[in-house]
Amino acid sequence: MSDTKERIISVSAGLLRRQGYTGTGVKQIVTAADAPFGSLYHFFPGGKEQLGAETIRWSGEMYGRLLPLIFDSTPDLVSGVRAFFAEAARDLEDSDYAEGCPIATVALEVSSLSDPLRQACADVFMSWIEAGTRRFAAAGLPEAPARQLVTGMLAALEGGFVLCRALRDSQPLKTVGEQVARAVAAVIDGDV
Amino acid sequence: MSDTKERIISVSAGLLRRQGYTGTGVKQIVTAADAPFGSLYHFFPGGKEQLGAETIRWSGEMYGRLLPLIFDSTPDLVSGVRAFFAEAARDLEDSDYAEGCPIATVALEVSSLSDPLRQACADVFMSWIEAGTRRFAAAGLPEAPARQLVTGMLAALEGGFVLCRALRDSQPLKTVGEQVARAVAAVIDGDV
Repeated sequence: MSDTKERIISVSAGLLRRQGYTGTGVKQIVTAADAPFGSLYHFFPGGKEQLGAETIRWSGEMYGRLLPLIFDSTPDLVSGVRAFFAEAARDLEDSDYAEGCPIATVALEVSSLSDPLRQACADVFMSWIEAGTRRFAAAGLPEAPARQLVTGMLAALEGGFVLCRALRDSQPLKTVGEQVARAVAAVIDGDV
Repeated sequence: MSDTKERIISVSAGLLRRQGYTGTGVKQIVTAADAPFGSLYHFFPGGKEQLGAETIRWSGEMYGRLLPLIFDSTPDLVSGVRAFFAEAARDLEDSDYAEGCPIATVALEVSSLSDPLRQACADVFMSWIEAGTRRFAAAGLPEAPARQLVTGMLAALEGGFVLCRALRDSQPLKTVGEQVARAVAAVIDGDV
């Protein structure tokens, strides 16, 4: 990928995360990326919708790298879950409650309006669920409960971000992180 | 509230739910509400931001009535939780995956941009958590775990909506509903 194209996508990712897709204009993007206006349509002939979809996939890949990083540095799944939510809460606090999920805002805004953008969000969510399921399965869980737990972990993370950003308080993420950790522990212990 | 004002708010609520705050123009609102353009600034001198905040509070009140309705019609908390998520999944399917939470889209879009709108979202979330906590406490749970469970239930609902709307599949809401039901059962059984 050219430097200019990568800069446009990276800048778009930050803007989509903070203010969503509808509220982000292409003019704001090229200005913030310090790129000539024409370069946007050169790299993204489909315009804002194509740039949005590529940005969502790029953000999904970047963000998706966090899960293995965190789980590699913890001794077991339950402490991995706790570390994962603690990291999410810290990132949110450090960014003054601006930086939650890079794609959830877009997912809610566009799901009923643009199928290419909805599909990009769906592909990212599925890739996260697949990667998490493989990880949980590698730690010894059967695939079906692993997939359910990872789906629940992702939903808790996304919903936690919604509450925390509105409340300007990271407590909900900490609360749901502990609940997900307990749900994982219950499956490992064979209580469920 | 006058009929026209209520119609403007009700129409706005539907539009915010489907396409968010930024993507909804005041012109679209008055047209859809069949109201004269001037009436918007007559009823909402603060313009779109005031209308948005009043719409969020109104939607929060309407939506908040669902929880007691559903829990009144079920014999215990655990079956109430299951019925609550089943109803959310059904509403989403029936609306072709358009109608999730009436305020989460706005919460994610505006939390870093407009404090009056963010505060309206925060007030609604807090009112739901308070009402749910009272309900769970009335069923016999101590207040602290009741509040944690309700916070987790709301986060699971919000995150479930994000996943289901993007994936056009109600399975994630059903999965997380079952997890919340189990978490509530574990607290009631004294396993936690």
